[in-house]
Amino acid sequence: MIRLEKKNLCTSHGINDWKVVEECFSPETSYRNETLFSLGNGYLGFRGNLEEGSDGTGLEGTYINGFYETETIKYGEIAYGFPEKSQTMLNIANSKRIRIFVEDEEFSLLKGNLTAYSRALNMREGLLKRTLVWTSPKGRTIELDFERIVHLGRKHLAMIRIRLTPVEADYKIQVISTIDGNVTNLTVENDPRVGSGLQGKALVTENLEANGTFGLIRQKTKNSKQTVVCCVEHVLETDCRHVCKSFTGDSTANTVYEIESNAGNTVTLTKFIVYSTSHDFCESLLEQESKRILSSALKLGYDMLKQEHTDILEDFWKRSDILIIGDPLLQQGIRFNLFHLLQSAGTDGRTSLAAKGLTGEGYEGHYFWDTEVFAMPFFVYTNPEISRKLLEYRYSILDKARHEARLLSHQKGVKFPWRTIAGEECSAYFPAGTAQYHINADIAYMVNKYVEATGDYDFLAKYGAEILFETARFWADLGAYIENKGNKFCINCVTGPDEYTAIVDNNCYTNLMARENLYNAVKAVRWMKTNLPEEYARLAHRLNLEENEVIEWKRAADNMYIPYDEETHIYPQDDSFLDKPVWDFANTPAENYPLLLHYHPLVIYRHQVCKQADLVLALFLLGDLFSEEEKKKNYDFYEPLTTHDSSLSTCIFSIMASEIGYRQKAFDYFMETARMDLDDYKGNTKNGVHIANMGGTWMCIVNGFAGMRTYDGTLSFRPSLPDQWQGYEFNLSFRGRLIKVTVNRYATAYQLIEGDDICIMHYNEKIMLKRAVPEVRKNIG
Amino acid sequence: MIRLEKKNLCTSHGINDWKVVEECFSPETSYRNETLFSLGNGYLGFRGNLEEGSDGTGLEGTYINGFYETETIKYGEIAYGFPEKSQTMLNIANSKRIRIFVEDEEFSLLKGNLTAYSRALNMREGLLKRTLVWTSPKGRTIELDFERIVHLGRKHLAMIRIRLTPVEADYKIQVISTIDGNVTNLTVENDPRVGSGLQGKALVTENLEANGTFGLIRQKTKNSKQTVVCCVEHVLETDCRHVCKSFTGDSTANTVYEIESNAGNTVTLTKFIVYSTSHDFCESLLEQESKRILSSALKLGYDMLKQEHTDILEDFWKRSDILIIGDPLLQQGIRFNLFHLLQSAGTDGRTSLAAKGLTGEGYEGHYFWDTEVFAMPFFVYTNPEISRKLLEYRYSILDKARHEARLLSHQKGVKFPWRTIAGEECSAYFPAGTAQYHINADIAYMVNKYVEATGDYDFLAKYGAEILFETARFWADLGAYIENKGNKFCINCVTGPDEYTAIVDNNCYTNLMARENLYNAVKAVRWMKTNLPEEYARLAHRLNLEENEVIEWKRAADNMYIPYDEETHIYPQDDSFLDKPVWDFANTPAENYPLLLHYHPLVIYRHQVCKQADLVLALFLLGDLFSEEEKKKNYDFYEPLTTHDSSLSTCIFSIMASEIGYRQKAFDYFMETARMDLDDYKGNTKNGVHIANMGGTWMCIVNGFAGMRTYDGTLSFRPSLPDQWQGYEFNLSFRGRLIKVTVNRYATAYQLIEGDDICIMHYNEKIMLKRAVPEVRKNIG
Repeated sequence: MIRLEKKNLCTSHGINDWKVVEECFSPETSYRNETLFSLGNGYLGFRGNLEEGSDGTGLEGTYINGFYETETIKYGEIAYGFPEKSQTMLNIANSKRIRIFVEDEEFSLLKGNLTAYSRALNMREGLLKRTLVWTSPKGRTIELDFERIVHLGRKHLAMIRIRLTPVEADYKIQVISTIDGNVTNLTVENDPRVGSGLQGKALVTENLEANGTFGLIRQKTKNSKQTVVCCVEHVLETDCRHVCKSFTGDSTANTVYEIESNAGNTVTLTKFIVYSTSHDFCESLLEQESKRILSSALKLGYDMLKQEHTDILEDFWKRSDILIIGDPLLQQGIRFNLFHLLQSAGTDGRTSLAAKGLTGEGYEGHYFWDTEVFAMPFFVYTNPEISRKLLEYRYSILDKARHEARLLSHQKGVKFPWRTIAGEECSAYFPAGTAQYHINADIAYMVNKYVEATGDYDFLAKYGAEILFETARFWADLGAYIENKGNKFCINCVTGPDEYTAIVDNNCYTNLMARENLYNAVKAVRWMKTNLPEEYARLAHRLNLEENEVIEWKRAADNMYIPYDEETHIYPQDDSFLDKPVWDFANTPAENYPLLLHYHPLVIYRHQVCKQADLVLALFLLGDLFSEEEKKKNYDFYEPLTTHDSSLSTCIFSIMASEIGYRQKAFDYFMETARMDLDDYKGNTKNGVHIANMGGTWMCIVNGFAGMRTYDGTLSFRPSLPDQWQGYEFNLSFRGRLIKVTVNRYATAYQLIEGDDICIMHYNEKIMLKRAVPEVRKNIG
Repeated sequence: MIRLEKKNLCTSHGINDWKVVEECFSPETSYRNETLFSLGNGYLGFRGNLEEGSDGTGLEGTYINGFYETETIKYGEIAYGFPEKSQTMLNIANSKRIRIFVEDEEFSLLKGNLTAYSRALNMREGLLKRTLVWTSPKGRTIELDFERIVHLGRKHLAMIRIRLTPVEADYKIQVISTIDGNVTNLTVENDPRVGSGLQGKALVTENLEANGTFGLIRQKTKNSKQTVVCCVEHVLETDCRHVCKSFTGDSTANTVYEIESNAGNTVTLTKFIVYSTSHDFCESLLEQESKRILSSALKLGYDMLKQEHTDILEDFWKRSDILIIGDPLLQQGIRFNLFHLLQSAGTDGRTSLAAKGLTGEGYEGHYFWDTEVFAMPFFVYTNPEISRKLLEYRYSILDKARHEARLLSHQKGVKFPWRTIAGEECSAYFPAGTAQYHINADIAYMVNKYVEATGDYDFLAKYGAEILFETARFWADLGAYIENKGNKFCINCVTGPDEYTAIVDNNCYTNLMARENLYNAVKAVRWMKTNLPEEYARLAHRLNLEENEVIEWKRAADNMYIPYDEETHIYPQDDSFLDKPVWDFANTPAENYPLLLHYHPLVIYRHQVCKQADLVLALFLLGDLFSEEEKKKNYDFYEPLTTHDSSLSTCIFSIMASEIGYRQKAFDYFMETARMDLDDYKGNTKNGVHIANMGGTWMCIVNGFAGMRTYDGTLSFRPSLPDQWQGYEFNLSFRGRLIKVTVNRYATAYQLIEGDDICIMHYNEKIMLKRAVPEVRKNIG
């Protein structure tokens, strides 16, 4: 069913599993590779554009998480309650641009000759490096070395360092370093996965400075009235004669160096870049604060800042790396994924993690359920402080989610937006947007998992409980006891994760997750009443929460209708799923996938065909509710119906295939997952990386091959090793412990690296892990 | 459930049941009354604008049936197969404008004093007349008399005649008669019933002439590239000294009369107006043909043309009038409805009947199923030649319907557009648009009814059969035999007539009507094979129609899944309808109706609540398939769930209430139906009349009170008389006969006026009607 086409970087020979290397430049792959070479720190995102400019071969992209423009959404035919305004992550002023002239010739990869070339993303150190030797059309040769950092410890800061060496002769070198405010977002028609984009320029320039080595631009969005400042400072290191000038143009601030360079002598130019927005500082202080940040960076200097940055990464990899023994390509892919997860996650409690991170404009930079269900497990079990921040973001938009619930005629509770940046629902196609009520339960699920994995009851009391209560309230109001269904609590007219089936009754995943949500809310009430009675009283008072509501939550959960066929043991995806004809896969040509780009929704909705894991996802997330036989039967039923047209699908199938012992399938699905962007399986990496899938890769190994689960709060494993590998190793954070898990062909070693003794499970065996005493157990099956 | 608010014309006292009279002018009601006073001839439509201009109190509107502009439809989030282009009936050059100046004062109803005023739509003669005595702010008094005709026999022609008489003194009168090409369509936000409209001017002026008494404008639409010409000629009758001048302005052609009028002497100005478009004549001949039509009208003169026009109406009323004895308000309402039906129906075989006729811009001038199911019965049984033309329109768009079917992945058959002008699907909200597949069966149903009522087998052979075959093919491809449903033929993912329930499986109405469609296609095959074997062979060859397809149609029909609850005898509206909670009517404030303007579609879809008759419509259209008990039980079940938020609802409930003996309900629903526009029940008559409801009024009487049915091709009646009336009378055309039906309290008289003897049924009694022998029978029950 999956159509694989490997479109590797022109480089994959000579794998360095800490690096992604481009060994030759091609305009055809430039657009895609800009995504792969993106740098980010959860706040600021730089696409991997060439400093000298892309000449239309790609998309110059610079983004700030949470910085967006709005426009009135146009509907062919509008209905009540449709979202009114779009939110689009804005492409902001481009500070990466540095043009280089050798005498009268401008440096460009598209002309002259390259006698050496390498562009490499160093994931261990978080650097993008490019080294090359270029001979101009008129025969002048220079060596160039670019190094770029988007600083992981200083969210406003990025740096570009260029080293230039004339090879054989002295040249007059001119360097023009620019902040270019003439930026627009990409506009793509007819692909719902990109969005039609903002038309024209969204930013109005309010201030522009170019003063010697300093440049600044201040711009404001036309509609959302958000302000962004970008300022830069340049440091030139050279013994050569040179002059520095500056000028402003139409929304550009430029610093110009004219250098009388000498053959063999290296000139070093460092550009320090600071971005900040009106979300960070009050508008009147924006320039001042930006300059302050810039100046404290300058004081430290490039090398110290770089050290700071690589130290942070060293710590990240220590806690988060996964080691694969026996497959360097895969090792590279996994690190690439984990690195991009880190780069993309908002860590300030008021931003989240977009479906494409900060690497491209796909899905308009919106946050979906991808964050919680697919990306967050990685953070919960390796960097829990980041997952807390991501959940705090959800808390921060509760009022907007309350408003949305009211708009949908629910007098209580919250309805989280299917897609958003600032919290308002931005889905302009409700059958596969607003109707995906399950996002409420997905968020609640991760609140619960986070608290379970961290024991962070402070979070529960301050934020988590309110999320659990308000989502539970919503379910209680959304569903109804239906006589025709044995007075069970039914949830009608929803769309589950599988968007190839829309607006159905009793989507099994939704009902299962809603039940979990309701039970967890009841549990949280009990816990707070016992442990924090005063806080509970205050919260209940503020939310107008009454005891009988909690009773109703439990009643709804106890009576939740779960579609199930006793005879076949199949959990129908929804009430109507089994009454539909199966999609005619045999007569669907390969080029007609993804189906959504080739068939009208009514045609897709009419058939048994799944875009992605739906009930199979429930088998994973709520695995303790299903018997082994049910898992196998349902996997077998849904797998042939699933196209995996969503990048959120293969990872879940891989995990479940691992669990039920389909080793080859588990591995095959995993391999499609692990290098999805590096190999551009979906053909749309140019629009940004597939963040959910990246988180899915981590889950494939930890939850899939290693079989990690936390049923009833106990960490358990059922490890197995793919035949293709010699072994693998990863660390897990769990309730203050750091545990190293090492799996080889025959056995698994568990080692407690940090924290107190803890009881874990290896298959059905309880193991008490103690510090410095590795426990080794045989793998089973 | 129904919120009645009578907003009568400021006139309803002194009812003349042939006229609609406005006895005082008010800017507040101007917009609405322009709709009521619209004139049209199925080709050309004039809103009832004041000649001197509406000063922003209303909407100057002039329309040509089938003349439209397109724009790219914007979607917040697009999907495959969504319609790309809108079609909007265009507001074209306004030729009604005639400004009058008395000395230095311009005549306007908004200033000065009216000592007499009357505006009357004379429905018997098809005239709009306005007479008034106006005293200017400076005290100058004139009598004015306006008469307007949109000619029913000459579709390109309209006429306005003004008689002006200075009352007490001689005044210098200036008359400026204009064709004003500066027109735009109305733009309304946030009401899906109007459409967002075209932004700005759609027409580009290509030619402009003003030559003495003659004026002309030629304009072309920007996108659809359709051309319209309007030319006028003026005839002034007066003994007074006068001069005539002309000039062109910015897209205006003006004829100016300066008249030295004398007190008591009447000046008469007649404006002859001709419109034609590039649909009528080839572009290069448009001016020439328009002038030819204008000149032949001028030769005949106003009085002869008026006589021609009123003769046509006399004949119309002779065949089509319904007489109500005992309720003049109602009598007026019914005639108003029949008159507007006549005025709105396209009769050239390439246009149809828009939801608002040619009276306003509601629903963008689109044709819906309203034409066939609601308006056409009136024509079939009174003016069958018009209904043939309306069906020929459907034939004319078959190729576009084929294209739409392919777009929806059906390799065979046609999918008629839910809303369109030229044949392409224009619904920008597919759950209540494209998904209403039932329109295919609705059209096929009326093909069958038309042939049954007329015996027009020529139509069947030339057009009808192909429609039946191609729609049947579509159903065969759309549905599937579903194992879970006992291998019955199921039709999934459709929306039935009730748009408050969308994208459901096995909408009962749809399945019943599809079955009828399939059977009628099989019957048509048999009839053609027997009676026109060569024509059938040719048609089958052209359509690639094979015998086994016909067998499949019958198999699908024989095995059609019809949702039915054996225990309660309820036909569930669809597979999921009974599994939903009932809408909370008790807590829905009156101002929240219509629900679609106050609740998100998901909220509405989630509940048992109907916008309009759905299953109840099937009880009527396919009445011979249901037992009396079933009809009653289902009526009782669905009635309390129905909001009648659609104007297509009350007529159907009235008819079925009549049938099951709910006399008071039948009458109440009828009364909401009959004067819906005159009393502006829905509050949106300003956007145009409710054509379907107007046809529904006729059905309420003929099918409802008189109980007319044609099961198995036999004309039958079960007459009853509402308590409030003394009697009623109507004529019916059936298979070449004209039959007068007169109902009083106790009995019904049937009289054959034209045609051969015919056997009809009165209740269960067969009656052989013979010419000139009235048959009188007692009413039962």
